[in-house]
Amino acid sequence: MVTHIPEGPVCPIPLSHNDTIILGHGSGGKLTHDLIKSVFQKHFSNPFLDQGDDAARMDSSLLQGTPVISTDAHVVNPLFFPGGDIGRLAVCGTVNDVSMLGAVPKYLTASFILEEGLSIIDLDKVVHSMAVAAMEAGVFIVAGDTKVVEKGKADKLYISTAGFGLIPMNRGVISGSNARLGDKVILSGSLGDHGIAVLSARNELSFETSINSDVAPLNSLVEQMLKKAPHTHVLRDPTRGGLATTLNEIARQSQVSILINESMIPVKQAVKAVCEMLGFDPLYLANEGKFIAIVPPDEAEFALAAIQNHPYGKDAVIIGSVEGMDPGSVIMITPYGSSRILTMLAGEILPRIC
Amino acid sequence: MVTHIPEGPVCPIPLSHNDTIILGHGSGGKLTHDLIKSVFQKHFSNPFLDQGDDAARMDSSLLQGTPVISTDAHVVNPLFFPGGDIGRLAVCGTVNDVSMLGAVPKYLTASFILEEGLSIIDLDKVVHSMAVAAMEAGVFIVAGDTKVVEKGKADKLYISTAGFGLIPMNRGVISGSNARLGDKVILSGSLGDHGIAVLSARNELSFETSINSDVAPLNSLVEQMLKKAPHTHVLRDPTRGGLATTLNEIARQSQVSILINESMIPVKQAVKAVCEMLGFDPLYLANEGKFIAIVPPDEAEFALAAIQNHPYGKDAVIIGSVEGMDPGSVIMITPYGSSRILTMLAGEILPRIC
Repeated sequence: MVTHIPEGPVCPIPLSHNDTIILGHGSGGKLTHDLIKSVFQKHFSNPFLDQGDDAARMDSSLLQGTPVISTDAHVVNPLFFPGGDIGRLAVCGTVNDVSMLGAVPKYLTASFILEEGLSIIDLDKVVHSMAVAAMEAGVFIVAGDTKVVEKGKADKLYISTAGFGLIPMNRGVISGSNARLGDKVILSGSLGDHGIAVLSARNELSFETSINSDVAPLNSLVEQMLKKAPHTHVLRDPTRGGLATTLNEIARQSQVSILINESMIPVKQAVKAVCEMLGFDPLYLANEGKFIAIVPPDEAEFALAAIQNHPYGKDAVIIGSVEGMDPGSVIMITPYGSSRILTMLAGEILPRIC
Repeated sequence: MVTHIPEGPVCPIPLSHNDTIILGHGSGGKLTHDLIKSVFQKHFSNPFLDQGDDAARMDSSLLQGTPVISTDAHVVNPLFFPGGDIGRLAVCGTVNDVSMLGAVPKYLTASFILEEGLSIIDLDKVVHSMAVAAMEAGVFIVAGDTKVVEKGKADKLYISTAGFGLIPMNRGVISGSNARLGDKVILSGSLGDHGIAVLSARNELSFETSINSDVAPLNSLVEQMLKKAPHTHVLRDPTRGGLATTLNEIARQSQVSILINESMIPVKQAVKAVCEMLGFDPLYLANEGKFIAIVPPDEAEFALAAIQNHPYGKDAVIIGSVEGMDPGSVIMITPYGSSRILTMLAGEILPRIC
């Protein structure tokens, strides 16, 4: 039901707080078309998406370099949390995965699974947030799809995104398998902000923090760094599983050991406090706006300075180095001088964190 | 629990009927890695996916032509139905969307949302089915993601796929906006098989039919047709919303009217029988292995013969033509000689059909 027509900029079909998703919105018929027009096209409109066919045609003149493809499903609970929402997360998650190969992200697709009864106002907020994040990252959302499931068969809204990007022609291969003896390990900022921000937004937990999620598109930061450290060997974002799991993946892929210094790892005081209260280890918490760069020693200081010069990297530090003993392992020197083997996350600490 | 090691070819980690998905499989940690190895990599292994990074690097020498991107979410209920399953559907749905622009599909991504408690044997069957369909279509599944949600927050398994393809350089633009006066409208086969096959597999319905879903990758059929009808104007697959909705989309996009002849439209006897019993109109039922081609009159017979020569197109017929009166409308001549305006699907007849 439409209660008023807002003044100022008018949506094609004004949204009311009473409007919810019904199964017919997933029929492929008139209701689906109305929803696409009033929500998705309103926010995402661009020359590729607006072609209106089953797929989108790109501009072939743009295809210079090595193509890169990635995908992510997003099921974060709740939809909205301090510092972001599932929409921003869905765009940034895939933009960042493409960026971690040194590629410039270009195009995204987005497919939505909506639960019957979802507020269309909430959907509109999420889609708007995706449009803002896509604009910040400089990518187009070129294709989409919407399905609706019965109440109780989803949790409001899930979003899967796929991303397409290009590695510039003169850039070397950046891969988890490229860490080399002597390389320095850089972390672009503090750990655990996203995990704790999402946790604080869950109703079952009765604590409040000042922590915002770090969810952000990292592509401009990566570009800024690669200009100063063009021989970077590895880039990876420590999302689910956290820093410890991500370093283990790299150590195995590259068949090296990674030595890190616990006292160098930045963790915000408020994050530390919640972790101590609830028994979490920030090394295993999810991040959505941080990355690890593994860089040859002669470029490490340039890389670090370039990262620190970007708003999303000002707390970057060198946390360790790549070593040769015991390939596949990650070893942490504690503040007391002892060493501890960091394993991959074994079970699950925070389900549906992204 | 692993009860036995099978003889013959051995999976990396043998699957047992007692194994189910737990939240930890979505943690990004060790359990996620184990699941990827024992299910996804076992079936999908290829040089792109096996790079093991956050995204997959493609071969840039392949990039000749206009790139095309598409995406679809798949929530079909039940997961397995006569003639197919959600895995085959997820691959074919996206392969077909890419093909409908005259592009050759190359790469797919797949993201999975798993419900806690899902049988890993069922997941393995679905993933195997995706691998078989991808092989038939000649595409690589190059990137994937897995998330797990709590029991009751999904319905066993949802799959979103995105597809990337290339329109060969000498091929004209094929688009829903390109239908021209005098063009012939070809339908590649009978209507409603998918909708009725899925319906028959739902527990709440107590009828049995011999109808199999038509779910199939249409790219080789499209290529075979385009060789004989290189000036084809429109290709589109009548999935959700059925033939009537798809023709309405084309009539609006091209600003033409489309006239079809009801007596020419192939509907299998068993599909007709179920439709009469339950009050469905086959013109609005979903198809997953059929397409509409709108072709200049001088190429129509060549196109038809080429389609009929392919196993997926042997029942193809010319069902109508593109006219000028009343742009945006679809008109059907009934067997009695009267005419009826076909509108888009208004509500929802079969939720979660794809």
